[in-house]
Amino acid sequence: MRVLSGIQPSGSLHLGNYFGMMKRMVEYQENNELFCFLVNYHALTSVFDAELLRRQTFEAACDFLALGLDPEKSVFWVQSDVQEVTELTWLLSNVTGMGLLERSHSYKDKTAKGIPASHGLFAYPVLMAADILLYGAEKVPVGKDQKQHLEIARDIAIRFNNTYGETFVVPEPDIEESVATVPGIDGQKMSKSYGNAIEIFAGEKEMREKVMKIKTDSTPVDQPKPVEGNVLYELYSLFLDEKEREKLKERFLTPGLKYGEVKKELFGVIWEYFAPYRKERERLVKDRQYVVDTLREGARKARQVAAVYLERARRNVGLDYWNE
Amino acid sequence: MRVLSGIQPSGSLHLGNYFGMMKRMVEYQENNELFCFLVNYHALTSVFDAELLRRQTFEAACDFLALGLDPEKSVFWVQSDVQEVTELTWLLSNVTGMGLLERSHSYKDKTAKGIPASHGLFAYPVLMAADILLYGAEKVPVGKDQKQHLEIARDIAIRFNNTYGETFVVPEPDIEESVATVPGIDGQKMSKSYGNAIEIFAGEKEMREKVMKIKTDSTPVDQPKPVEGNVLYELYSLFLDEKEREKLKERFLTPGLKYGEVKKELFGVIWEYFAPYRKERERLVKDRQYVVDTLREGARKARQVAAVYLERARRNVGLDYWNE
Repeated sequence: MRVLSGIQPSGSLHLGNYFGMMKRMVEYQENNELFCFLVNYHALTSVFDAELLRRQTFEAACDFLALGLDPEKSVFWVQSDVQEVTELTWLLSNVTGMGLLERSHSYKDKTAKGIPASHGLFAYPVLMAADILLYGAEKVPVGKDQKQHLEIARDIAIRFNNTYGETFVVPEPDIEESVATVPGIDGQKMSKSYGNAIEIFAGEKEMREKVMKIKTDSTPVDQPKPVEGNVLYELYSLFLDEKEREKLKERFLTPGLKYGEVKKELFGVIWEYFAPYRKERERLVKDRQYVVDTLREGARKARQVAAVYLERARRNVGLDYWNE
Repeated sequence: MRVLSGIQPSGSLHLGNYFGMMKRMVEYQENNELFCFLVNYHALTSVFDAELLRRQTFEAACDFLALGLDPEKSVFWVQSDVQEVTELTWLLSNVTGMGLLERSHSYKDKTAKGIPASHGLFAYPVLMAADILLYGAEKVPVGKDQKQHLEIARDIAIRFNNTYGETFVVPEPDIEESVATVPGIDGQKMSKSYGNAIEIFAGEKEMREKVMKIKTDSTPVDQPKPVEGNVLYELYSLFLDEKEREKLKERFLTPGLKYGEVKKELFGVIWEYFAPYRKERERLVKDRQYVVDTLREGARKARQVAAVYLERARRNVGLDYWNE
């Protein structure tokens, strides 16, 4: 099964990204044909600083490679290294009704938040549809918030096939309902924009400070601590198997537990958990040429698949005037 | 001066196209660097029949080459042979305000006429801006109806340069106010969509019938004929120099002139005028390989210029993550 996933190169990864998406992605590559790419064309809708975009793209590549994305098992590239996707975006545009885009929640939400209403922001779902259709993706893992974008891609694929004849695979969503929402240190959903995230590749001092700031309740030391809705307990649990989690629960329920000590302990656990990934990431950041070559090789592989669908689409709409 | 002009491959050329645009284009190539291309990507916004688009594209190429567009003196290609323009369209989209597109008369007019409101139709001016900016065009000849599209392209160029640093030439319009509107056989402006056009490469029988149907007034034969607002007089005049036109005027003002005879005469004039072009066109239609090779060579030249502007734009927005 060909699974496709686009990743925003939007800066430092945190525990929410890791447990919500990354681990799953690395699992996909074991039993599927995983196509995974960094969506820097999409990022242009909100990043207008070239230096920042370059850095975030390169660092995201290092992040994912360090965390186990294996370029031998998957196809991993940067979106803008396969320019063909922009041509397909145009071809799709002509069968994309304006109403479909006007109803996009994401566009409405972003402009409501004050992001300027650019044409790029509006056309975002068409580029996303092109990303999916260009590679003949069968399954696309999406969060609930991206469900509508996948619906749009399906609508466009069906409309294109109806208008010009069978051209594209109509993709199926893979909506992971069961993904646990990882809480941030303040108890809200962990999110970069809420400033409540524990970044997995943060420096030691910074990470310790973040962990020590995890919001806890004011249960006295000599009382049992709650586990339900306890952010510290939930975050710690992410790193434990079932047996270990039971033990932790017991400790919380036993009077005498000091939150401060558990926090210090949790910091150690997180720090150690990511130690090998951190080391690998440091190696990659220094070996720029290897990372760039890896991405280029990924783009080469992606382009081979893209060529098949793009040529078919170009022919079916009639750009091949030499065949008249 | 680099002059750029995009041409709709929209079927058979008529006298209005020829005297309104083609002759001027051929003149441009003598003293300017003329970039001229067939906009088949744009045509996709209204043509959903691949076979028709292929034929119209190829035939438009034959038309223009036959009428004197010289591939040695100008750069002549098919839009979709330089796919780079679609990538630039995306880069420009992110600095294109939605308001700019929403105010487009052309979009409003087309949807009001019942053309389905597709995203392609809406994004039409962004693709057109990319066409212009990709080739560093300094001057763009536009009819009054396309003035707004050029304004949009200028706005986008300025906005892009302000956001990301100097990247594009801001193009100047070349609005030809003096171009005579060629009347159709019914007296309205000659237009394919009004069904009142005399097609320059029509067959002999068809062209004669069209000319014989030119609308005339009912002035009796033994009276002087008006010249002002006289469609027959105006159409005939297109083929005459000043001296010859004076003579024609005298004939109209002299009682006894029979409209039917002048029509027969005019048919002969038109038929002869286009005879060498028709012959050349017939040769080209048969020599498909030559036409295709000529267009490909044009695309190769266009691509060389495009590469300069596109690379600069890609770098200035930060797609070159390898330079981080």
